[in-house]
Amino acid sequence: MSAFLYSSLLAVTIFLGECCHAALLGNPQVIDMTYTFDDTTVNWPTREPFRLKDTFRGYHEKGYYYEGSSYEGFEHSGTHVDAPSHFCKDKWRMDAVPLERLMGPAVVVDVSNKTDNNADYAVTAQDFQDWEVSNGRIPDGSIVLVRTGWGQYWSDKRKFLGTDTTDTSLLHFPGIDPEGARWLVQNRGMHAVGIDTGSLSPGQSHTFSAHQVLCEADIIGLECVANIDKLPTTGATVYALPLKIGEGSGGPARVIAIINNPASGSGKDEL
Amino acid sequence: MSAFLYSSLLAVTIFLGECCHAALLGNPQVIDMTYTFDDTTVNWPTREPFRLKDTFRGYHEKGYYYEGSSYEGFEHSGTHVDAPSHFCKDKWRMDAVPLERLMGPAVVVDVSNKTDNNADYAVTAQDFQDWEVSNGRIPDGSIVLVRTGWGQYWSDKRKFLGTDTTDTSLLHFPGIDPEGARWLVQNRGMHAVGIDTGSLSPGQSHTFSAHQVLCEADIIGLECVANIDKLPTTGATVYALPLKIGEGSGGPARVIAIINNPASGSGKDEL
Repeated sequence: MSAFLYSSLLAVTIFLGECCHAALLGNPQVIDMTYTFDDTTVNWPTREPFRLKDTFRGYHEKGYYYEGSSYEGFEHSGTHVDAPSHFCKDKWRMDAVPLERLMGPAVVVDVSNKTDNNADYAVTAQDFQDWEVSNGRIPDGSIVLVRTGWGQYWSDKRKFLGTDTTDTSLLHFPGIDPEGARWLVQNRGMHAVGIDTGSLSPGQSHTFSAHQVLCEADIIGLECVANIDKLPTTGATVYALPLKIGEGSGGPARVIAIINNPASGSGKDEL
Repeated sequence: MSAFLYSSLLAVTIFLGECCHAALLGNPQVIDMTYTFDDTTVNWPTREPFRLKDTFRGYHEKGYYYEGSSYEGFEHSGTHVDAPSHFCKDKWRMDAVPLERLMGPAVVVDVSNKTDNNADYAVTAQDFQDWEVSNGRIPDGSIVLVRTGWGQYWSDKRKFLGTDTTDTSLLHFPGIDPEGARWLVQNRGMHAVGIDTGSLSPGQSHTFSAHQVLCEADIIGLECVANIDKLPTTGATVYALPLKIGEGSGGPARVIAIINNPASGSGKDEL
């Protein structure tokens, strides 16, 4: 290794920590928490699905090879961000959300043991408080990720949403109870709350009350988040970068996590 | 500041460096290098422009406020990523590009003094070599960002592209000379090459030769990159996260840069 390369890598290591160092070395500890956008994308039942269109793949008459397509989809299908304007009037739309609200240390709250026989489970304030007893206070600026275990059903649209019809009264999947959401916004200062189901509000919530509570408090929402099960409970940093849609109510996003240096740890601390 | 908060911030600082620490503290040194996607988005002349559609904003009959839209656009309009498949057969399409290729230390190559009276300027191998004389070798894993100064014309579609017609023979904007691209791929190991114009190949290149060279070498392209002028020559880290389009030839992206701790510097080094 050249002296320059070594010093460069050392500088990068000092700057960004072992996680990004590893990424730059081609031994990434980067997790893609994004589902592919194509015809496998689970779509909100009442909206048109994601698709490519006007695709060209082949040789141009001038001799060179070329591929290009247009795309279309719904802001709230697939892995995506909810802007506060989604359920709250006069709040930030997608392009107005400050970038720093879209990144932060991950907090993984695993409630998958409560959803095995209850597709309508709603995460409570007690669930978040129980997490803190084991893991310390939810940090200001964090990205709270609720793991219900629903990611395993992504490839089965009927199972993921509870229905493969457009009848939203038949939706069944876990989400956050409004009381749980209220406890979070009144007591903790996270940047965003994400989940591995199709919506932060449970399938059987027909007034989206958890959304209303979070949007009112300017908390960013992340839905259809992939691979939450690949993250440690703490010790990763999430970047949830949405399409910067002007006046959008949200946007399809690329969500990634970079695993921190395992040696640095993240212990229990005061509440 | 509580002992916990202090220890958390210290841990974050150790892990991710001052840049992200600052972001988490609400004093971000995060630069959004993305143009908003709306009717101001400069569009490739032969394709349909970006737009929102089927927009609902108002009160649902159940009483809650709601906003939601669908979107459509072209993979290669606005701030976006080119996958190698864009101009090279059987290369990575968008969803196959490894995440680590989409991030790395920024290298800003400023050629804006050569474009003042030459909208067709093409960046040469000599330009990259001159940069290295002043700044050290272009690091492996870096994101090379060419600043032509064209960002100042973004709000004027005719000026940005050279034409407001669909006649691509009238396109005039700076890009990279194929010989410059060839020097990069044969001699340096960057992850990606980006530019502040509508295309890596100059407007008057009708065979997209620079693209062909870069795609053949699996180098990721970034086009219509905003705010390159806000970055230091070195000392920032770029995350260029595109929509994960299944089998896409590229995708609209959220590109951000996090400015490293200015105190850490980045000096000239051996070539």
